Amino acid sequence: MRVDHAGLATEDATTMVEQYTGLFDCSVAHEESFDGMEIAFLDLGNCYFEVIEPREDGAISAYLDRNGPGIHHLAVETDDIEASLETARDLDIDRIDEEPRPGAWGHDVAFLHPGSTGGVLLEFVEH
Amino acid sequence: MRVDHAGLATEDATTMVEQYTGLFDCSVAHEESFDGMEIAFLDLGNCYFEVIEPREDGAISAYLDRNGPGIHHLAVETDDIEASLETARDLDIDRIDEEPRPGAWGHDVAFLHPGSTGGVLLEFVEH
Repeated sequence: MRVDHAGLATEDATTMVEQYTGLFDCSVAHEESFDGMEIAFLDLGNCYFEVIEPREDGAISAYLDRNGPGIHHLAVETDDIEASLETARDLDIDRIDEEPRPGAWGHDVAFLHPGSTGGVLLEFVEH
Repeated sequence: MRVDHAGLATEDATTMVEQYTGLFDCSVAHEESFDGMEIAFLDLGNCYFEVIEPREDGAISAYLDRNGPGIHHLAVETDDIEASLETARDLDIDRIDEEPRPGAWGHDVAFLHPGSTGGVLLEFVEH
Protein backbone atom coordinates (compact mmCIF):
# COMPACT_ATOMS: atom_id res chain seq x y z
CA MET A 1 0.00 0.00 0.00
CA ARG A 2 1.02 3.58 -0.63
CA VAL A 3 -0.80 6.87 -0.97
CA ASP A 4 -1.54 7.50 -4.64
CA HIS A 5 -3.14 10.94 -4.49
CA ALA A 6 -5.26 13.49 -2.68
CA GLY A 7 -8.24 14.63 -4.71
CA LEU A 8 -8.97 18.37 -4.64
CA ALA A 9 -12.35 19.68 -5.78
CA THR A 10 -12.29 23.10 -7.40
CA GLU A 11 -14.39 25.35 -9.60
CA ASP A 12 -11.27 26.59 -11.39
CA ALA A 13 -8.66 23.93 -12.16
CA THR A 14 -6.60 26.27 -14.35
CA THR A 15 -6.00 28.70 -11.47
CA MET A 16 -5.33 25.93 -8.94
CA VAL A 17 -2.86 24.15 -11.22
CA GLU A 18 -1.01 27.39 -11.91
CA GLN A 19 -0.87 28.30 -8.22
CA TYR A 20 0.10 24.83 -6.94
CA THR A 21 2.78 24.19 -9.56
CA GLY A 22 4.35 27.48 -8.53
CA LEU A 23 3.98 26.90 -4.81
CA PHE A 24 5.39 23.38 -4.81
CA ASP A 25 7.70 23.68 -7.83
CA CYS A 26 5.97 20.66 -9.34
CA SER A 27 4.68 19.76 -12.78
CA VAL A 28 1.53 18.34 -14.32
CA ALA A 29 2.05 14.60 -14.81
CA HIS A 30 -1.24 13.92 -16.56
CA GLU A 31 -4.36 15.75 -17.71
CA GLU A 32 -7.62 14.42 -19.06
CA SER A 33 -11.33 14.99 -19.42
CA PHE A 34 -13.01 12.13 -17.61
CA ASP A 35 -16.65 11.45 -16.78
CA GLY A 36 -17.71 15.10 -16.97
CA MET A 37 -14.64 16.39 -15.11
CA GLU A 38 -11.44 18.17 -16.09
CA ILE A 39 -8.64 16.44 -14.16
CA ALA A 40 -4.96 17.28 -13.68
CA PHE A 41 -2.49 15.20 -11.66
CA LEU A 42 0.30 17.25 -10.09
CA ASP A 43 3.47 15.27 -9.40
CA LEU A 44 4.51 16.00 -5.82
CA GLY A 45 7.40 13.52 -6.00
CA ASN A 46 6.08 10.66 -3.88
CA CYS A 47 2.38 10.94 -4.84
CA TYR A 48 -0.04 13.23 -6.66
CA PHE A 49 -2.54 15.99 -6.05
CA GLU A 50 -5.52 15.35 -8.34
CA VAL A 51 -7.14 18.68 -9.24
CA ILE A 52 -10.77 18.06 -10.26
CA GLU A 53 -13.09 20.59 -11.88
CA PRO A 54 -16.59 19.40 -12.74
CA ARG A 55 -18.04 20.36 -16.12
CA GLU A 56 -21.31 18.50 -15.60
CA ASP A 57 -23.57 17.71 -12.66
CA GLY A 58 -22.20 14.81 -10.63
CA ALA A 59 -20.51 13.88 -7.37
CA ILE A 60 -17.93 16.69 -7.53
CA SER A 61 -20.37 19.44 -8.43
CA ALA A 62 -22.65 18.23 -5.62
CA TYR A 63 -19.68 18.29 -3.24
CA LEU A 64 -18.82 21.85 -4.28
CA ASP A 65 -22.43 22.96 -3.80
CA ARG A 66 -22.51 21.39 -0.34
CA ASN A 67 -19.02 22.11 0.99
CA GLY A 68 -17.30 24.57 -1.29
CA PRO A 69 -13.87 23.80 -2.75
CA GLY A 70 -11.36 21.72 -0.80
CA ILE A 71 -9.93 18.28 -0.15
CA HIS A 72 -12.40 15.77 -1.56
CA HIS A 73 -10.77 12.36 -1.05
CA LEU A 74 -7.61 10.36 -0.36
CA ALA A 75 -6.60 7.53 -2.67
CA VAL A 76 -4.45 4.58 -1.61
CA GLU A 77 -2.78 2.39 -4.22
CA THR A 78 -3.15 -1.35 -3.88
CA ASP A 79 -1.82 -4.11 -6.11
CA ASP A 80 -5.01 -6.14 -5.55
CA ILE A 81 -8.11 -3.95 -5.42
CA GLU A 82 -10.47 -6.93 -5.08
CA ALA A 83 -8.57 -8.11 -1.99
CA SER A 84 -8.63 -4.56 -0.58
CA LEU A 85 -12.42 -4.41 -1.03
CA GLU A 86 -12.66 -7.79 0.70
CA THR A 87 -10.66 -6.39 3.61
CA ALA A 88 -13.10 -3.45 3.79
CA ARG A 89 -16.02 -5.91 3.86
CA ASP A 90 -14.35 -7.92 6.63
CA LEU A 91 -14.02 -4.70 8.66
CA ASP A 92 -17.71 -3.81 8.06
CA ILE A 93 -16.76 -0.71 6.12
CA ASP A 94 -19.50 0.31 3.68
CA ARG A 95 -18.44 0.38 0.03
CA ILE A 96 -19.66 2.94 -2.51
CA ASP A 97 -18.31 0.61 -5.19
CA GLU A 98 -18.74 -3.11 -4.56
CA GLU A 99 -16.61 -3.84 -7.61
CA PRO A 100 -13.70 -1.93 -9.16
CA ARG A 101 -14.67 0.46 -11.94
CA PRO A 102 -12.65 2.44 -14.49
CA GLY A 103 -11.25 5.65 -13.01
CA ALA A 104 -9.09 8.49 -14.26
CA TRP A 105 -5.72 7.80 -15.89
CA GLY A 106 -6.89 4.31 -16.92
CA HIS A 107 -6.74 2.95 -13.38
CA ASP A 108 -9.24 0.74 -11.60
CA VAL A 109 -10.82 2.44 -8.60
CA ALA A 110 -13.28 1.74 -5.80
CA PHE A 111 -14.52 4.18 -3.17
CA LEU A 112 -15.46 3.46 0.44
CA HIS A 113 -18.27 5.27 2.23
CA PRO A 114 -17.06 8.16 4.42
CA GLY A 115 -19.86 7.41 6.87
CA SER A 116 -17.94 4.32 7.98
CA THR A 117 -14.37 5.64 7.74
CA GLY A 118 -14.51 8.58 10.12
CA GLY A 119 -15.81 11.10 7.59
CA VAL A 120 -12.93 10.48 5.15
CA LEU A 121 -13.76 9.59 1.55
CA LEU A 122 -11.22 6.86 0.74
CA GLU A 123 -10.47 5.42 -2.68
CA PHE A 124 -8.55 2.28 -3.60
CA VAL A 125 -6.59 2.56 -6.86
CA GLU A 126 -4.95 -0.24 -8.80
CA HIS A 127 -2.67 0.83 -11.65
CA MET B 1 9.11 18.68 -2.15
CA ARG B 2 7.11 15.62 -1.29
CA VAL B 3 3.83 14.98 0.50
CA ASP B 4 4.51 14.36 4.19
CA HIS B 5 1.03 13.57 5.46
CA ALA B 6 -2.71 14.07 5.29
CA GLY B 7 -4.19 15.27 8.59
CA LEU B 8 -7.45 13.58 9.62
CA ALA B 9 -9.63 15.18 12.32
CA THR B 10 -11.55 12.71 14.47
CA GLU B 11 -13.39 12.52 17.76
CA ASP B 12 -12.09 8.97 18.32
CA ALA B 13 -8.47 8.40 17.35
CA THR B 14 -8.38 4.93 18.91
CA THR B 15 -11.14 3.62 16.65
CA MET B 16 -9.75 5.33 13.55
CA VAL B 17 -6.23 3.98 14.14
CA GLU B 18 -7.54 0.47 14.67
CA GLN B 19 -9.72 0.62 11.56
CA TYR B 20 -7.12 2.23 9.27
CA THR B 21 -4.24 -0.03 10.33
CA GLY B 22 -6.47 -3.00 9.48
CA LEU B 23 -7.74 -1.54 6.23
CA PHE B 24 -4.32 -0.52 4.88
CA ASP B 25 -2.20 -3.15 6.64
CA CYS B 26 -0.07 -0.33 8.06
CA SER B 27 1.43 0.46 11.44
CA VAL B 28 1.65 3.41 13.81
CA ALA B 29 5.00 5.13 13.21
CA HIS B 30 4.67 7.73 15.97
CA GLU B 31 2.23 8.78 18.70
CA GLU B 32 2.25 11.80 20.94
CA SER B 33 0.16 14.25 22.94
CA PHE B 34 0.80 17.65 21.40
CA ASP B 35 -0.78 21.04 22.04
CA GLY B 36 -4.02 19.62 23.44
CA MET B 37 -4.32 16.89 20.80
CA GLU B 38 -3.72 13.14 20.70
CA ILE B 39 -1.85 12.43 17.49
CA ALA B 40 -0.92 9.20 15.70
CA PHE B 41 1.03 8.98 12.44
CA LEU B 42 0.14 5.93 10.34
CA ASP B 43 2.91 4.81 7.99
CA LEU B 44 1.35 4.36 4.54
CA GLY B 45 4.73 3.57 2.97
CA ASN B 46 5.43 6.76 1.03
CA CYS B 47 3.84 9.23 3.48
CA TYR B 48 1.65 9.35 6.58
CA PHE B 49 -1.93 9.75 7.67
CA GLU B 50 -1.91 11.93 10.80
CA VAL B 51 -4.89 11.00 12.98
CA ILE B 52 -5.75 13.95 15.25
CA GLU B 53 -8.15 13.86 18.20
CA PRO B 54 -8.56 17.11 20.15
CA ARG B 55 -8.60 16.90 23.94
CA GLU B 56 -8.94 20.66 24.47
CA ASP B 57 -10.66 23.51 22.64
CA GLY B 58 -8.62 24.62 19.66
CA ALA B 59 -8.44 24.59 15.87
CA ILE B 60 -9.28 20.89 15.52
CA SER B 61 -12.23 20.92 17.94
CA ALA B 62 -13.55 24.02 16.14
CA TYR B 63 -13.15 22.21 12.82
CA LEU B 64 -15.05 19.18 14.15
CA ASP B 65 -17.83 21.42 15.46
CA ARG B 66 -18.11 23.16 12.10
CA ASN B 67 -17.54 20.31 9.63
CA GLY B 68 -17.65 17.02 11.47
CA PRO B 69 -14.79 14.53 11.17
CA GLY B 70 -12.79 14.26 7.95
CA ILE B 71 -9.72 15.35 6.02
CA HIS B 72 -8.38 18.46 7.76
CA HIS B 73 -5.18 19.36 5.89
CA LEU B 74 -2.40 18.27 3.54
CA ALA B 75 1.23 18.68 4.56
CA VAL B 76 4.10 19.02 2.09
CA GLU B 77 7.67 18.48 3.21
CA THR B 78 10.25 21.08 2.25
CA ASP B 79 13.94 21.22 3.08
CA ASP B 80 13.73 25.01 3.48
CA ILE B 81 10.51 26.13 5.12
CA GLU B 82 11.52 29.81 5.15
CA ALA B 83 12.06 29.72 1.39
CA SER B 84 8.71 27.94 0.93
CA LEU B 85 6.95 30.67 2.93
CA GLU B 86 8.71 33.26 0.78
CA THR B 87 7.38 31.51 -2.34
CA ALA B 88 3.88 31.67 -0.84
CA ARG B 89 4.34 35.41 -0.21
CA ASP B 90 5.54 35.93 -3.78
CA LEU B 91 2.38 34.17 -5.02
CA ASP B 92 0.15 36.37 -2.77
CA ILE B 93 -0.98 33.35 -0.77
CA ASP B 94 -2.07 34.31 2.74
CA ARG B 95 -0.08 32.68 5.54
CA ILE B 96 -1.60 31.54 8.85
CA ASP B 97 1.98 31.31 10.15
CA GLU B 98 4.36 34.00 8.95
CA GLU B 99 7.23 32.15 10.61
CA PRO B 100 7.79 28.41 11.18
CA ARG B 101 6.64 27.12 14.55
CA PRO B 102 7.16 23.84 16.39
CA GLY B 103 4.73 21.16 15.23
CA ALA B 104 4.11 17.52 16.05
CA TRP B 105 6.94 14.98 15.92
CA GLY B 106 9.49 17.75 16.57
CA HIS B 107 9.14 19.21 13.07
CA ASP B 108 8.91 22.86 12.06
CA VAL B 109 5.59 23.70 10.45
CA ALA B 110 3.77 26.63 8.85
CA PHE B 111 0.20 26.70 7.56
CA LEU B 112 -1.21 28.63 4.61
CA HIS B 113 -4.70 30.10 4.58
CA PRO B 114 -7.26 27.90 2.76
CA GLY B 115 -9.03 31.05 1.61
CA SER B 116 -6.20 31.66 -0.83
CA THR B 117 -5.39 28.04 -1.82
CA GLY B 118 -8.73 26.91 -3.25
CA GLY B 119 -10.22 25.86 0.08
CA VAL B 120 -7.36 23.48 0.91
CA LEU B 121 -5.56 23.89 4.25
CA LEU B 122 -1.89 23.39 3.31
CA GLU B 123 1.00 22.92 5.72
CA PHE B 124 4.71 23.13 5.06
CA VAL B 125 6.80 20.74 7.17
CA GLU B 126 10.57 20.74 7.60
CA HIS B 127 12.02 17.71 9.38
